Amino acid sequence: MKVFYDERQRLHDPQIQFFAGKLQLAPEHPSRTRRLLNAALESGFVQAQPADLGWDPILKIHDAGYIAFLKAASLLWSKLDDAGPECVPHIHPVRYGRTRPRGILGLAGYYMNGTNCPIGPHTVEAAYWSAQAALAGADQIIAGEALCYALCRPPGHHAHSDLAGGFCFLNNAAIAAQRLLDRYERVAIIDVDVHHGNGTQEIFYSRDDVFCGSVHADPSDFYPFYQGYADEEGEGEGFGWNMNLPLPHGSGDEKVVGAVQRLCARARELDCQVIVVALGLDAFELDPMGKFRVTTPAFEDMARAFQHCEMPVLLVQEGGYDGPHLGENLRSFLRPFATTNVSGEARISTAQH
Amino acid sequence: MKVFYDERQRLHDPQIQFFAGKLQLAPEHPSRTRRLLNAALESGFVQAQPADLGWDPILKIHDAGYIAFLKAASLLWSKLDDAGPECVPHIHPVRYGRTRPRGILGLAGYYMNGTNCPIGPHTVEAAYWSAQAALAGADQIIAGEALCYALCRPPGHHAHSDLAGGFCFLNNAAIAAQRLLDRYERVAIIDVDVHHGNGTQEIFYSRDDVFCGSVHADPSDFYPFYQGYADEEGEGEGFGWNMNLPLPHGSGDEKVVGAVQRLCARARELDCQVIVVALGLDAFELDPMGKFRVTTPAFEDMARAFQHCEMPVLLVQEGGYDGPHLGENLRSFLRPFATTNVSGEARISTAQH
Repeated sequence: MKVFYDERQRLHDPQIQFFAGKLQLAPEHPSRTRRLLNAALESGFVQAQPADLGWDPILKIHDAGYIAFLKAASLLWSKLDDAGPECVPHIHPVRYGRTRPRGILGLAGYYMNGTNCPIGPHTVEAAYWSAQAALAGADQIIAGEALCYALCRPPGHHAHSDLAGGFCFLNNAAIAAQRLLDRYERVAIIDVDVHHGNGTQEIFYSRDDVFCGSVHADPSDFYPFYQGYADEEGEGEGFGWNMNLPLPHGSGDEKVVGAVQRLCARARELDCQVIVVALGLDAFELDPMGKFRVTTPAFEDMARAFQHCEMPVLLVQEGGYDGPHLGENLRSFLRPFATTNVSGEARISTAQH
Repeated sequence: MKVFYDERQRLHDPQIQFFAGKLQLAPEHPSRTRRLLNAALESGFVQAQPADLGWDPILKIHDAGYIAFLKAASLLWSKLDDAGPECVPHIHPVRYGRTRPRGILGLAGYYMNGTNCPIGPHTVEAAYWSAQAALAGADQIIAGEALCYALCRPPGHHAHSDLAGGFCFLNNAAIAAQRLLDRYERVAIIDVDVHHGNGTQEIFYSRDDVFCGSVHADPSDFYPFYQGYADEEGEGEGFGWNMNLPLPHGSGDEKVVGAVQRLCARARELDCQVIVVALGLDAFELDPMGKFRVTTPAFEDMARAFQHCEMPVLLVQEGGYDGPHLGENLRSFLRPFATTNVSGEARISTAQH
């Protein structure tokens, strides 16, 4: 089993975040990747370098103007007088925007939905390789592997086709799902991050080839606030192809794992042939950004729900924030796959617990 | 001639502004009101206390949910753990918002379009009296006065029906224009602030009873960025009732005064019967927030353009930032009215220059 990861993903190193009316340290650190990679290796995964497939497969999901913005943002920002070191917006076209502006201050708010996705000089390079890791994982599945882990960082599920948000720049899971459509007719993305996968939802909202299911903390008072409600079921041909299971803050193992099982059941009902797991680990009870009370063993139960679908599974890393438990929770999630992979071949787990 | 102003308008005292990726001091100070009031008194205006007309005339322009948010925001914000002292958003429903959230962090971004309209404990009281000053001015015009000055602060022209932005909470000029429709059939709002009056534009965008004209610095790289372009001409019945004259940064007296004359001509073409001047003074060459090179005497020329319309004129204060020139520029603007009012009665100017 392979884990795809490129060291350049660490280059994005956000410094500040304006949140709740004051400056804070940005919480999505490069150090997350080390803990996640070690946990994958300890679980019997073998590190592999993603191929460089270029921007074309990314542009199947993302708007060309948005990608041009991402590539230019840091340089344009650096030419501003008296600005901070990272591109962060301060105004946005909320409901009434009519026109895309030309200057970087206005573009920042046009292509980002808030202050928690600062763009520094290496952000785009890191996001690019994060997306390449997702694509490499998809290609492994297409090549016949039953399981693959794309260690994507920065994460992706809050990135819309034309909008960065919530630590996310490129929607890795969406890019991988689109790639999987080269072989499969119907793909399921099931998002277990404690935050709703709003970018992923909107990208596929009117399509009937990618099912988007998400279990997450009730967004009415939690990020991403404006999406993730149960009545968002897709539209047009996509009606029925979006399923949100928001749960009350404080929900524990039984409710969260039960919701994952419901999402898996819906993916099977829709005859999906492959699952992309948007693997946030921040449902954990001690996660600094979380709102659920999921325990470490419950991640293993979530993984078994995916195994029971009897489809190939691509794991795409989303959130889960730094702390000693991050690696433990990933090892717990990977354990069922490490001991017996979904094609039935017995494996010896090398997990250190 | 009366200047309407209430001391409670000073209570809004914003502290911080997150701008260009860092924290800065908020530039829209209560001290502005002292300079403006003194200049009006020196120009022969008599201070008058606005009546308290309640929220009803404000609710003819603003969304009830938005007003409820404004009233509740500071108290709800104060209950957050580990937040700054003022309600400032960090995420917004940019293009993809589907639902209004319940908690204050999400509501802040739903009802505000950026970080430069912090809500403190006295913001709503100050904005309320600013709007009452505008209403009192409108009522003076309705009572037959040819000229009145509403010293509105906080300003209003960036406030949409359901959105605060750019130092603005209640759209004083729009509230006054709506009030004037009790007597007049067609009202012109002509906005000479260096920033486009985007809130005012959107409020009346499909109406054919209020003409909105604005001369301002090209917004493609200047606040408010997403509106204020020449091709925004109104829609539906309002087509032709919106006129934007964006000018290049660095434009001086001739271009700016010429644009004001064009807006006045359009107001006459549309048979408007009364003019609300959204009187920003930040077109001035030394204004700390400005982009034009307008000199002090040119404000007098602008005022003469309004006089030549031969309609009653309600002045509603918008921007113009603190510095020794703020009062001088207001005195310059008021001079033609102070010496000869529009109904022809001669007056002695008491201006100190």
